[in-house]
Amino acid sequence: MEDTDFAKRIRFGRLYDFYGGLLTDKQKNIMELYFYDDYSLAEIAAKENTTRQAVYDLLKRVEQTLEKYEKKLKLLERDENQHFEVRAAAKLLKTYISEGHEDPRLKETEKILQDIEEKGR
Amino acid sequence: MEDTDFAKRIRFGRLYDFYGGLLTDKQKNIMELYFYDDYSLAEIAAKENTTRQAVYDLLKRVEQTLEKYEKKLKLLERDENQHFEVRAAAKLLKTYISEGHEDPRLKETEKILQDIEEKGR
Repeated sequence: MEDTDFAKRIRFGRLYDFYGGLLTDKQKNIMELYFYDDYSLAEIAAKENTTRQAVYDLLKRVEQTLEKYEKKLKLLERDENQHFEVRAAAKLLKTYISEGHEDPRLKETEKILQDIEEKGR
Repeated sequence: MEDTDFAKRIRFGRLYDFYGGLLTDKQKNIMELYFYDDYSLAEIAAKENTTRQAVYDLLKRVEQTLEKYEKKLKLLERDENQHFEVRAAAKLLKTYISEGHEDPRLKETEKILQDIEEKGR
């Protein structure tokens, strides 16, 4: 959960994107402050009238809850496998187009692949 | 849940594919008999030493539970939107290839799109 552990933070955010709907309103509220408004733990504590430690504990518990859902449903894992395939397809098409094959259908296909890649889920 | 209502049955199966991991072992067991082994309600009842009505009620409750998860997480909805995009891309590429544009990269891209389409999630 430390900001230095960037990959872990990204995973936490993606888990929230998949399973956040199953959290309580309070948990969601704090996750939104943490991820979307980029508040520090101390700032969240001040806003919620609690301690930095309590916010830390809540986020830790949320992380465990989300990991528990991932263990049961594996939606993130499945999505990452698909993401890899989509990126491979986009790359193949890109090299083909770059050799002078101009066609709006190719461009459109490339755009759709990029869309899917960016959206993740 | 009646077999005549085919679209509804497909939706039920897809919801199970997404959220089945959150059900109890007993619920999962009966869903597997119903969907994968294609048992009738009466056959499940005989196997589980219970009544047809009890099996029906269990499946109804499972359906409601799965719909509740879908309402919260909307994973099926998101997947269906993406599925629509992938199919559009596959179609565009197919018409382009069919005009005599042969290249292994195009074929491979088409194959990846078809894979994603078939797998659903």
